[in-house]
Amino acid sequence: MANSKFEYVRSYEVNDACLPNCWIVVRLDGKSFHRFSDVHSFRKPNDERALRLMGRCAMRVMAELSDVVIAYGQSDEFSFVFHRRTAWFGRRASKLMTHTVSLFASSFVFHWLEFFGETVLRFPPTFDARVVLFPTDRCLRDYLSWRQADCHINNLYNTTFWALVQKGGLSPSQAQERLKGTMTGDKNEILFSEFGTNYNKEPEVFRKGTTLIWQKAEKKTVTQLPKTQVSRLDELGSASTYLSKSQKRHRAVVALNVDIIGEDFWQEHQEILAD
Amino acid sequence: MANSKFEYVRSYEVNDACLPNCWIVVRLDGKSFHRFSDVHSFRKPNDERALRLMGRCAMRVMAELSDVVIAYGQSDEFSFVFHRRTAWFGRRASKLMTHTVSLFASSFVFHWLEFFGETVLRFPPTFDARVVLFPTDRCLRDYLSWRQADCHINNLYNTTFWALVQKGGLSPSQAQERLKGTMTGDKNEILFSEFGTNYNKEPEVFRKGTTLIWQKAEKKTVTQLPKTQVSRLDELGSASTYLSKSQKRHRAVVALNVDIIGEDFWQEHQEILAD
Amino acid sequence: MANSKFEYVRSYEVNDACLPNCWIVVRLDGKSFHRFSDVHSFRKPNDERALRLMGRCAMRVMAELSDVVIAYGQSDEFSFVFHRRTAWFGRRASKLMTHTVSLFASSFVFHWLEFFGETVLRFPPTFDARVVLFPTDRCLRDYLSWRQADCHINNLYNTTFWALVQKGGLSPSQAQERLKGTMTGDKNEILFSEFGTNYNKEPEVFRKGTTLIWQKAEKKTVTQLPKTQVSRLDELGSASTYLSKSQKRHRAVVALNVDIIGEDFWQEHQEILAD
Amino acid sequence: MANSKFEYVRSYEVNDACLPNCWIVVRLDGKSFHRFSDVHSFRKPNDERALRLMGRCAMRVMAELSDVVIAYGQSDEFSFVFHRRTAWFGRRASKLMTHTVSLFASSFVFHWLEFFGETVLRFPPTFDARVVLFPTDRCLRDYLSWRQADCHINNLYNTTFWALVQKGGLSPSQAQERLKGTMTGDKNEILFSEFGTNYNKEPEVFRKGTTLIWQKAEKKTVTQLPKTQVSRLDELGSASTYLSKSQKRHRAVVALNVDIIGEDFWQEHQEILAD
Repeated sequence: MANSKFEYVRSYEVNDACLPNCWIVVRLDGKSFHRFSDVHSFRKPNDERALRLMGRCAMRVMAELSDVVIAYGQSDEFSFVFHRRTAWFGRRASKLMTHTVSLFASSFVFHWLEFFGETVLRFPPTFDARVVLFPTDRCLRDYLSWRQADCHINNLYNTTFWALVQKGGLSPSQAQERLKGTMTGDKNEILFSEFGTNYNKEPEVFRKGTTLIWQKAEKKTVTQLPKTQVSRLDELGSASTYLSKSQKRHRAVVALNVDIIGEDFWQEHQEILAD
Repeated sequence: MANSKFEYVRSYEVNDACLPNCWIVVRLDGKSFHRFSDVHSFRKPNDERALRLMGRCAMRVMAELSDVVIAYGQSDEFSFVFHRRTAWFGRRASKLMTHTVSLFASSFVFHWLEFFGETVLRFPPTFDARVVLFPTDRCLRDYLSWRQADCHINNLYNTTFWALVQKGGLSPSQAQERLKGTMTGDKNEILFSEFGTNYNKEPEVFRKGTTLIWQKAEKKTVTQLPKTQVSRLDELGSASTYLSKSQKRHRAVVALNVDIIGEDFWQEHQEILAD
Repeated sequence: MANSKFEYVRSYEVNDACLPNCWIVVRLDGKSFHRFSDVHSFRKPNDERALRLMGRCAMRVMAELSDVVIAYGQSDEFSFVFHRRTAWFGRRASKLMTHTVSLFASSFVFHWLEFFGETVLRFPPTFDARVVLFPTDRCLRDYLSWRQADCHINNLYNTTFWALVQKGGLSPSQAQERLKGTMTGDKNEILFSEFGTNYNKEPEVFRKGTTLIWQKAEKKTVTQLPKTQVSRLDELGSASTYLSKSQKRHRAVVALNVDIIGEDFWQEHQEILAD
Repeated sequence: MANSKFEYVRSYEVNDACLPNCWIVVRLDGKSFHRFSDVHSFRKPNDERALRLMGRCAMRVMAELSDVVIAYGQSDEFSFVFHRRTAWFGRRASKLMTHTVSLFASSFVFHWLEFFGETVLRFPPTFDARVVLFPTDRCLRDYLSWRQADCHINNLYNTTFWALVQKGGLSPSQAQERLKGTMTGDKNEILFSEFGTNYNKEPEVFRKGTTLIWQKAEKKTVTQLPKTQVSRLDELGSASTYLSKSQKRHRAVVALNVDIIGEDFWQEHQEILAD
């Protein structure tokens, strides 16, 4: 049985290599996570177990695909930024997104128990993913800002909404009606005056989402990072295609819950976008 | 904090919709499965537990993405054929491949225990995936034939190789040397004369791989299928975009281990490629 | 001065090869031809000189790019259908469309004099072009039908519009108003009862557009084609990539002005879509 | 005759918009220009009429597609750089390359007489074109340097080759043999010692190619540009999509024959890459 007579079908495959010298972002999103969170009784407005699990999965992805220079996640989404010079999988978009999303999804089940304990996982979750290219540092940063601004907007809304429902006794549709047309200041005010909640004191993992970056493992500065909750993944056999051997050594992924829209973060971590 | 000033980055996304009226194949492959199978002590030359687990995951994918009309798998790969008229996710290649591969990967961990029992899963597996388009029925069938011919070639080689090693006492490199340049007939002969193995009596799941198709659930013919091992997934809430409601009802995925290169299979299952 | 240090930029080029086994259509359209036709005093509603010139340019393209199996043109547009098995330029979409459109555009100026005589060409015309793929014969034929139906609809409208203006003494806006909401039958009736024009007796080049196909040069049947005006391009050194040498010989491009929506044309010319 | 039943074929078209915020280069190349130059008795090693004609065509393109910020040409090729923020044709690659190449090709025939006088144009020329994207200023400049370095290398070779043939009495194959393995210095030496030719005194249009840029029309500095031959296209109705009205006014295309590899040119013309 000769394989060769059928092998011509290989020519139907296309090479979808990403344009060189662009930042490559793979963003994944939970599919039907509204239903998923209902079935698994996620806490409202935020389920810290779910967010920590998402962060854990992202760490695995970043450790494995070590050309990722920064990752940012919130809610049921995570974005992974591959270095503009990465040569992973010949920069093929399909390879980059499928490796990323499949490792994330299998990790989600693999680590479920660590975060959800006796809450049984009823069915395996699905995620979709896409690749987006950014030619400049500026538009990459604007992308990340867009996601973090989205986190803020949604979280403030959800925090207020669920306060009205859980503590204020409103029905969901009454709460929705109450919030129609409100601005940031209005919601802060509702939280503060009606429920004694200072939104700015809410946990940063809720308000800022989770940012993963690489840090030198010997640096003990990790714990000095102000206002952040930090977890670590140590001494990974990182196989980056653009870093030299010595650069690769002694790196660890750390998780931060900080502002990445302003200049401070990027001033402090200039290595992220460095060539 | 206005989201709008960053939102322009959305324009960097591309719509990678597949050409209409083509068969869409998503093929996924295990990443570094050589190592994965070593770590988890897979049996050689075939680990039936692993093959059954792969089939189980594929069933989940097919049940969920019910515009898949046929799926074929062998070794650590699986191909899913979406109907040429599918409108899932606007036919976006990235959506199709990432949903498929992430559900497959999460299912792999989810169902591990059912097939591997006390063998602990050490780390979550990764798969890559790609999309390939086929404009005609002929080239789609040639694609599936290509994969099944590949199954045959590899399985015959591996069966003979491991017979030489496990029963013949050869070292791996000696076995490799022995098989260099041998044809199909030679390998059959080695198996038969030296090890008393009639290759054609080897389990069909090894020789033919696994083919998933839809069958009418009320049909009791499932068990009548000759020479096949059949498992079923019943009464799925299949959400196909190209079938009418009545067509969608009462369908179930069945797993076959049969020849799909010849005409017989396609004559018997004309509904697979039907418009 | 070493070239090599800059040569890396080659890697920024992408290979945009068309999916194998699909019909490849290159359609070109005149850019700003409304203005172009005003400046050069084209006759209304149709300028036969312009249509014949377009046909002449298309013949050049077809003779040069002899994997084109059929071309269809009307107004300021022309569509060229490359055989589904063509290997021209490695099926690269950019090559196919730019060769086609640049040869067409340079031919337009080159042959201007033959058709427009003393009407001086004031400035060089521009065309755009695109590539569209069709996986099946059916959708390719529907594409060509779409263009010919478009020809019919526009020509009937324009014929009636200009009759109302040129013979009926209406202003353009009055004519436009008069035709608002009219159906095919209404326009036929206006032409016949008010201007004594039987639309179906209008020249076929106006009503049907121009279709170019290959014919065996020795065949004397060319002149027997009913109701068509035929011109020929003889004995081209056609360099088709999918025909054998003997098939390539003795072919000539002929121009027809016939219906290509119905079955008759395709029954009579089965070689066009033949493998 | 309803058009609507065929109109579904529109969905087969793809939107090939270029990634935002990248420099878009359209490079066109003469097709079979070796034969074209033989048939039309081009002078060797350079035909100044042909080079000037190419430049004239490029000026037309640039004047028409006024989002082109710089164009560079040599031999039978020309590259047009669209501003990274251009919105022409929705940045669709097919539109950009086909408009550019078709206007260039029709201009070539249109202006032929001005440059070639009684030399009759025997047949219309063809060009191909491609689109290449560059995310950074650096790689765009490296692209242009690559083309100018190519001009230098080829021109030095051709100048020496034709000196050996035309003045040295060698046959083409003898000349080829003589030049095998020679470096830049060797060729300069042959030219100088054997033919009394100082290569660096050869016309700059041959050695540097032709660069087109926009200049303020009121500036009288045009003639002050050192070592360049300058021609102008005045007061174009430039329809740029990224410049404000006042910026568009009073611009003219000028042709330079200068070095664009070094820093000087870019220091002097910072407006070219300016946002």
